[in-house]
Amino acid sequence: MTHLPEKLLTGYHNFMHGRFEVESDRYRRLAQEGQAPDTLVIACCDSRSAPETIFDAGPGELFVLRNVANLVPPYEPDGEFHATSAALEFAVQALKVKNIVVMGHGRCGGIKAALDPAMKPLSPGDFIGRWMSLLAPATEAVAGNSMMTTTERQTALERISIRYSIANLRTFPCVKILEDKGRLTIYGAWFDISTGELWVMNKETGDFERPEAG
Amino acid sequence: MTHLPEKLLTGYHNFMHGRFEVESDRYRRLAQEGQAPDTLVIACCDSRSAPETIFDAGPGELFVLRNVANLVPPYEPDGEFHATSAALEFAVQALKVKNIVVMGHGRCGGIKAALDPAMKPLSPGDFIGRWMSLLAPATEAVAGNSMMTTTERQTALERISIRYSIANLRTFPCVKILEDKGRLTIYGAWFDISTGELWVMNKETGDFERPEAG
Amino acid sequence: MTHLPEKLLTGYHNFMHGRFEVESDRYRRLAQEGQAPDTLVIACCDSRSAPETIFDAGPGELFVLRNVANLVPPYEPDGEFHATSAALEFAVQALKVKNIVVMGHGRCGGIKAALDPAMKPLSPGDFIGRWMSLLAPATEAVAGNSMMTTTERQTALERISIRYSIANLRTFPCVKILEDKGRLTIYGAWFDISTGELWVMNKETGDFERPEAG
Amino acid sequence: MTHLPEKLLTGYHNFMHGRFEVESDRYRRLAQEGQAPDTLVIACCDSRSAPETIFDAGPGELFVLRNVANLVPPYEPDGEFHATSAALEFAVQALKVKNIVVMGHGRCGGIKAALDPAMKPLSPGDFIGRWMSLLAPATEAVAGNSMMTTTERQTALERISIRYSIANLRTFPCVKILEDKGRLTIYGAWFDISTGELWVMNKETGDFERPEAG
Repeated sequence: MTHLPEKLLTGYHNFMHGRFEVESDRYRRLAQEGQAPDTLVIACCDSRSAPETIFDAGPGELFVLRNVANLVPPYEPDGEFHATSAALEFAVQALKVKNIVVMGHGRCGGIKAALDPAMKPLSPGDFIGRWMSLLAPATEAVAGNSMMTTTERQTALERISIRYSIANLRTFPCVKILEDKGRLTIYGAWFDISTGELWVMNKETGDFERPEAG
Repeated sequence: MTHLPEKLLTGYHNFMHGRFEVESDRYRRLAQEGQAPDTLVIACCDSRSAPETIFDAGPGELFVLRNVANLVPPYEPDGEFHATSAALEFAVQALKVKNIVVMGHGRCGGIKAALDPAMKPLSPGDFIGRWMSLLAPATEAVAGNSMMTTTERQTALERISIRYSIANLRTFPCVKILEDKGRLTIYGAWFDISTGELWVMNKETGDFERPEAG
Repeated sequence: MTHLPEKLLTGYHNFMHGRFEVESDRYRRLAQEGQAPDTLVIACCDSRSAPETIFDAGPGELFVLRNVANLVPPYEPDGEFHATSAALEFAVQALKVKNIVVMGHGRCGGIKAALDPAMKPLSPGDFIGRWMSLLAPATEAVAGNSMMTTTERQTALERISIRYSIANLRTFPCVKILEDKGRLTIYGAWFDISTGELWVMNKETGDFERPEAG
Repeated sequence: MTHLPEKLLTGYHNFMHGRFEVESDRYRRLAQEGQAPDTLVIACCDSRSAPETIFDAGPGELFVLRNVANLVPPYEPDGEFHATSAALEFAVQALKVKNIVVMGHGRCGGIKAALDPAMKPLSPGDFIGRWMSLLAPATEAVAGNSMMTTTERQTALERISIRYSIANLRTFPCVKILEDKGRLTIYGAWFDISTGELWVMNKETGDFERPEAG
């Protein structure tokens, strides 16, 4: 029994007889020479915000870490397993990317769960609860703000989480040093699923603005 | 200062005036109704193996977790932050996906690092070393086989890592229970960057075979 | 009583009234002038991997040595009977072939026997056990890797055996000298019975690759 | 560098787009179910006498051992490496073939070398000399017969070698026992390259006759 869900197989055949046929030389070269992406994107697992789609990126262009709510935990060299820190270390130290983009998006399920006071653990391990607790102080402040609408609170925490991850990125010595030397640049972005708009973080103010208006 | 690397901005404009224009209704509906993907893909961060590209998937189809070497650590409800377990829990318990695909690929940098005896920590935290140590027993067995070529050892460990992650998936009670009830199916796949071929795991033997030849 | 199994007689009549009728001049010339094949193929006895079939070769083209698992023992000028060394010597020194191809194949029974820990001698002489013991060190390393599937171990040892035979070919002074002079070229190949694919050994890395993808 | 001699690659492509395309189901089945040939053919390496060609045999039909002059050495359970005995043991004990055909042919180079008084070792190891010495007593008797022509001596020794190999086959206990039980039948055959005629050994007299006249 060697099979995949029908939909994935069909999609794969579209790829092979479409994009791959056109780009086979590029794939072969990328296989032989190795990848050398300029950019690490830290994005959410959400099915509606794939970085390759939103940035119309081809093979070899983006090194992509995806977890729930695009979070970067703080630097913690404690000898434990850290999926996120490992990917970050590999991108910065081995691949020497020049850019890191933390990309959040609207209607994020992880953020919504964090803000939901009625939310119960999804399983006894409560992994989502633990994971989202990285944002706990910000979550409390936002959740307690009864003057904002539900949507406003959601968007607020989505954007706070991007700034929080960017702040944590800088707790990694390798990131800090390279950024200070001007060899690494950090960006924030927020994707609006409904309108397709990409809002980019202003480095000085932390505000999210549309690039056209930048 | 509100900017993104030129290449990303250009890519985003292509998206907005191309795919998004065609699919704006779909995006709007996905925003209003929420995502309901059938499939969780656990893939590598590698820039050459984006699941959306390989499966030609549109918005809303794939919930995608990406970490180095597409690893799933074993179930460990210890109260720590677990990016991978959190994404898994969210996909299975909140989104109720029907399929989980663990997708590895050829020439994986994480696997290569694990097999390289001369590899030194990339940073004092040695996050990659710690992360890849999840595969330590298999790595030792493969690395010690001097009769296999470097590429053969690499491919062997890449495929072992997929089976290892699948075995660990089943240590999560929610996965085990739903799989036993027939409501969740687990797949393994390995993408050959050079040829574009997707090798699919045979559920009975664990071997990787091309679907055509299954 | 002069007979052959019915099936062989039928096959022979097909040959006589088919191929031989078309190629009778060629056979007559080959009889008068002697054979002058360019290539020695060292292949397995397996009924599914006849070199003449796979290379669509006509009479006079391939000098073919076949033994279990296409093994070449190391050079051992000890005065004993050596079927393999004799054929090799004849091909290289008397026929002056320009190419030697060591061709293994998938699902090889000799390799399978070597890897089977429960395998008992097939007869008191244990000729298969002795013959396959030529590969003993590699067999141990592969057999001990419990993270690989049965098929993966099998394929690994099949390919190791080809490289092993090629290394042993070079222990024969006549082979070594002619190869160094550029008058003899050595190739490795592995035939996949199931898919019909021929994987060719990359001379520099020892990896097996499909020629199309080389 | 992954290549094969041009001629072999062309032949392989003919196979893939010809015979394999037609017989792919058969190959796949043979891969899945394993080989189960009825017949072991012990033939010469000569490029002009491939058993699959002469018997128009498809994949899975003939288990084929080929060495110089199609010789079977006597049973010698001495713990050494014996290519021929190993193949014989595998065919009889593991595959349980029903027939063994020893097939010699005209103008055999090994036989010619054995009969040539001026023949010098082809290499210091003298592997051909050693191998053909299996026939030494018969060779002396034939070579010393000055009343026969060169061609007659050659044909005579070729046929003697077939009967000699058949006699040695019977020194293997497994062959002897199965033949006595009627579960294994042994045949001799001699192929005339020039005319395409196959001469079959009469079991009672040892003479070689054409089957039509049998």
